[in-house]
Amino acid sequence: MKLPWKRLVRFVGVDGSSYYGEPDITNVENLVDLYRAGKLNAYPLDGDIFDGSATLSTHSIKVEKLLGPLEASQVPAVKGIGLNYVSHIKEAGRTTPTYPMFFIKGSKSVNDWGAPIPIPKVAQQEQCDYEGEMCFVIGREGKDIPKAEALNYVAGYMTGNDMSARTWQRNPKFAGPVPQFNFSKGFDKYAPLGPLLVSTELLGDASNLDLETRVNGELRQSSNTSDLLFDVPTLVEFLSQGTTLEKGTVVMTGTPRGVGMGMNPPVWLKHGDTVEVTVGGLGTLANSIVFE
Amino acid sequence: MKLPWKRLVRFVGVDGSSYYGEPDITNVENLVDLYRAGKLNAYPLDGDIFDGSATLSTHSIKVEKLLGPLEASQVPAVKGIGLNYVSHIKEAGRTTPTYPMFFIKGSKSVNDWGAPIPIPKVAQQEQCDYEGEMCFVIGREGKDIPKAEALNYVAGYMTGNDMSARTWQRNPKFAGPVPQFNFSKGFDKYAPLGPLLVSTELLGDASNLDLETRVNGELRQSSNTSDLLFDVPTLVEFLSQGTTLEKGTVVMTGTPRGVGMGMNPPVWLKHGDTVEVTVGGLGTLANSIVFE
Repeated sequence: MKLPWKRLVRFVGVDGSSYYGEPDITNVENLVDLYRAGKLNAYPLDGDIFDGSATLSTHSIKVEKLLGPLEASQVPAVKGIGLNYVSHIKEAGRTTPTYPMFFIKGSKSVNDWGAPIPIPKVAQQEQCDYEGEMCFVIGREGKDIPKAEALNYVAGYMTGNDMSARTWQRNPKFAGPVPQFNFSKGFDKYAPLGPLLVSTELLGDASNLDLETRVNGELRQSSNTSDLLFDVPTLVEFLSQGTTLEKGTVVMTGTPRGVGMGMNPPVWLKHGDTVEVTVGGLGTLANSIVFE
Repeated sequence: MKLPWKRLVRFVGVDGSSYYGEPDITNVENLVDLYRAGKLNAYPLDGDIFDGSATLSTHSIKVEKLLGPLEASQVPAVKGIGLNYVSHIKEAGRTTPTYPMFFIKGSKSVNDWGAPIPIPKVAQQEQCDYEGEMCFVIGREGKDIPKAEALNYVAGYMTGNDMSARTWQRNPKFAGPVPQFNFSKGFDKYAPLGPLLVSTELLGDASNLDLETRVNGELRQSSNTSDLLFDVPTLVEFLSQGTTLEKGTVVMTGTPRGVGMGMNPPVWLKHGDTVEVTVGGLGTLANSIVFE
């Protein structure tokens, strides 16, 4: 896709309004440091973020509050891929799937960079877990998209965290006879994304990005998107079979080994913890856990 | 919910425009006969269908083409309940769940009354199946809704068909290590609804409605919503835990025994078949199967 921005942030300006814009940075790693120092500026976007004819302002304005790159109302659904890193498949005690499997988080699961993740009472008891993931967003509606054309439908990439309630996902007393993903992963704000969206023009198929997840600073996940069982073009082709992929659909591509459930003994997220997910070239997503 | 309509249809008028309106009928069973005889009229609705302050026109107009009661753009998601009739749980060889389990069909799965159901190539081979279901629609956004208040969030009820591709759902070579519902049931147009939406004011909790499904006129499913394991208020309470139920969300409440998969040997839908689902008081949904 040809878009007017290379990197996109969403933010609140000095006038209290929300904007989309291209941050004035030389590399992604500086984004959050500049923001925290009160020195991040961005060129506001005039028009829809997925519209090739939208334009960037020639004057930058100060980013007062950095949000996530997408607002919930622009995301019709978040499709999360399960079992897409061989290391996590082993950790979860599953066999390797032949085709991608996915679950769906609703629009209201979208959460901002830097925002708290509220954990509802029903999902607090020894089950609250993270999944660091590389994510992409569909920028152009499509159906039956061949692999070779897939990247023409991908607007760009983001860092994401697929928050999960493991008891509701895997314990038969709660999930029932087969594991359930839609309830256990679909609570409001359970899909934080950001800090920014990086265009497909810059990143291509995003097939060689380091991924790391830290909890309270401790390294838990360390992998690379080259280990994905199903890469981005394969996922777009599979998911679009007989099914329209709507503009704004976010795909979370799956998590590598190192989730709390896989530790011995398992270690669950608790109130006040901070989860940081870093994907090379996509920046670090940081959110705090808040038991409601 | 207090709404200006008791029964709601969506239709094309003589001017070629689409309308929502209250049909001029004395009982639901006459609706389709009147329409087929070219004698169905309706009072157009001015305003949003979920807005208590919308008003009905005092003059009725002719229904030229009857559609489904909801357009896809008004439905953020279709949540389908699995294993909610004891008879179907036995037929599917599953144990009885303690809590509801659900899958999600996207907005584009919504299909009209009377319209063809397109079956994509990937879902044609010995797996195409129906599920007759009673469905309801959320008319008011809510979260953490107690059972006792649930019906204040339900705008009304519809007949529906939860179309399913069984190989993708259940065969481990395709579904992977655990059964998958979102891909196998989520193809475009796989959730036909209609012919009309009947208000909660008229139907209460819809807990005693006969349900029958016929394929090419042959009776396949025959049950009653009194056999539902989890009734409508229980489903609203469960699904809204920590999760906002958006206005327009459709819930398909599950299917009783008698699907094609459960026959001995299984009988699959083929090109040209007609599936009719009748729910007492909600009318008969009829759609033809079209292999693309």
